[in-house]
Amino acid sequence: MIDLLLLGTGAMVPLPNRWLSCLLVRAGGSLILFDCGEGTQVVWRRFGWGFKRLAAICLTHQHADHVAGLPGLLHTVSNAGRTEPLDIFGPTGTAAVIAGLRVIAPVLPFDVRVHELEPGASFALPDGLRGNVVAGAHSIPVLAYRVERPRAPAFDPAAARALGVPTSAWSALQHGEPVAFEGRQVRPEDVLGLPRQGVAFAFVTDTRPVPAHLDVANGVDLLICEGTYGPSAKIETAIRNGHMTFAEAATIARDADAGELWLTHFGTGMPRPDEFIGEATAVFPRTRIGRTGLAASLTFAHGLEELDPVGG
Amino acid sequence: MIDLLLLGTGAMVPLPNRWLSCLLVRAGGSLILFDCGEGTQVVWRRFGWGFKRLAAICLTHQHADHVAGLPGLLHTVSNAGRTEPLDIFGPTGTAAVIAGLRVIAPVLPFDVRVHELEPGASFALPDGLRGNVVAGAHSIPVLAYRVERPRAPAFDPAAARALGVPTSAWSALQHGEPVAFEGRQVRPEDVLGLPRQGVAFAFVTDTRPVPAHLDVANGVDLLICEGTYGPSAKIETAIRNGHMTFAEAATIARDADAGELWLTHFGTGMPRPDEFIGEATAVFPRTRIGRTGLAASLTFAHGLEELDPVGG
Repeated sequence: MIDLLLLGTGAMVPLPNRWLSCLLVRAGGSLILFDCGEGTQVVWRRFGWGFKRLAAICLTHQHADHVAGLPGLLHTVSNAGRTEPLDIFGPTGTAAVIAGLRVIAPVLPFDVRVHELEPGASFALPDGLRGNVVAGAHSIPVLAYRVERPRAPAFDPAAARALGVPTSAWSALQHGEPVAFEGRQVRPEDVLGLPRQGVAFAFVTDTRPVPAHLDVANGVDLLICEGTYGPSAKIETAIRNGHMTFAEAATIARDADAGELWLTHFGTGMPRPDEFIGEATAVFPRTRIGRTGLAASLTFAHGLEELDPVGG
Repeated sequence: MIDLLLLGTGAMVPLPNRWLSCLLVRAGGSLILFDCGEGTQVVWRRFGWGFKRLAAICLTHQHADHVAGLPGLLHTVSNAGRTEPLDIFGPTGTAAVIAGLRVIAPVLPFDVRVHELEPGASFALPDGLRGNVVAGAHSIPVLAYRVERPRAPAFDPAAARALGVPTSAWSALQHGEPVAFEGRQVRPEDVLGLPRQGVAFAFVTDTRPVPAHLDVANGVDLLICEGTYGPSAKIETAIRNGHMTFAEAATIARDADAGELWLTHFGTGMPRPDEFIGEATAVFPRTRIGRTGLAASLTFAHGLEELDPVGG
């Protein structure tokens, strides 16, 4: 299961009624944060997910509205009692930004390990999740993230019995290891079915649409994508500022065959983004306007299900 | 006139219902901010005082809960159109902290001029205000601030007429300049009355009480002082953490003959600071529990008057 919670949906500056765009993810015993603008820890506290289990932070880029909340958050994670390392992923230049911001968080009871990712990189996230990044197109380097929980092929007990595999060896085969018994060898593929679809989401913000977004969003259960501008008439402003319109985000969702689209990162000039949802749903009907507290679970059994964001 | 607005009253971490301790001051056409924790710009926006006129920031010390909001605020001041320089005052080490935090605000349309103040320093603030600092006692260097608007002595027209001073020369004398006419010289003190009381406030936080606090708070119209702990029984915790109890803050107000005391910087373990106001009023009756939006004006004519914080 992967739980996703939108903490904020704003662009550029935090507003009294709109926190900056970021996403909190819960997987197993760990939390993973995507972007961390000023005030992230404040709105986070509303939902009771705790801070101690924050194991990884994935940064799309280094503009202040996506990273300025980091030093305060690191202190709060420290106050919550974390001692295990915390991994921070981001594009080239992330290490220098973290070093600068840590001028006010120089001593922490846990290691902060910074990983600068090249576009195309694949990396391990907590609880067996896999991350992948591609480059976007913005005024500075930006990454779009895909996060996936792969699903093992089903084990076929009938096939195992037919091959005479003792039940004590089933677990190894289920985990992909060959086993030898009575002078014979049985390979995992002899007793496993076809590959099965895992669950996945993508987080795409502060970028013009690029072809690689179809890769990160390909077949995801949920695409969370910026829609800085609602009206398609704002396309020239979007191009000039390295952002997207609602319709452009919806086009990625449609062309990548995403399950659902949540729009976020709304421009400060758009107090009521819901007024423009038609611009997106005309292209991709399964679109929702993001809001603080919008949450969902991704499960193998049921795909995407809405989630009560409080507690857990 | 000096207008003062408490933006937040919290210590250590910003909470959903309590912004971090900081004070916004308006004098003439300029704004001056005292401390800038994470989220300061968010709550600031509620009151409609604008950002462009922010001319100075006074920092007590460099702990994250007092400075983490700076880079985001600098961007917002930039977006508001400021091009005039912005002065940042603080203790030794401030320049390095600003340099670190500006990793995410490297290019601004205005100069940021950092001034590291030695304890005892006097410095000019916008609109003719004078600042003074003394050292407190905390885990790192901390400054307590006094800000004063001096008041010129009253001009005595009868004395000027008796000396035969032409009215065209009155203004120069009022401004403290000697004038010469008809072969004679008249000095300002010949036509000015006794010195008159100005208005002043002090901002004291993140410190144990020290004797120098009686100097910064001496006779101020308003002392804004930390009260991290309400109950006097918490004195040992206060000593250990370099903070004060309500009663200790009230003792400074009483001994310095302050006009009024506003308590702020409430510990996270004290959700209802008003429950402990008796600890302060037993020592100094004119005490108020700070809250976001508590505001006052200091005027020569009326001293301290409560102020509607919105707009202006």
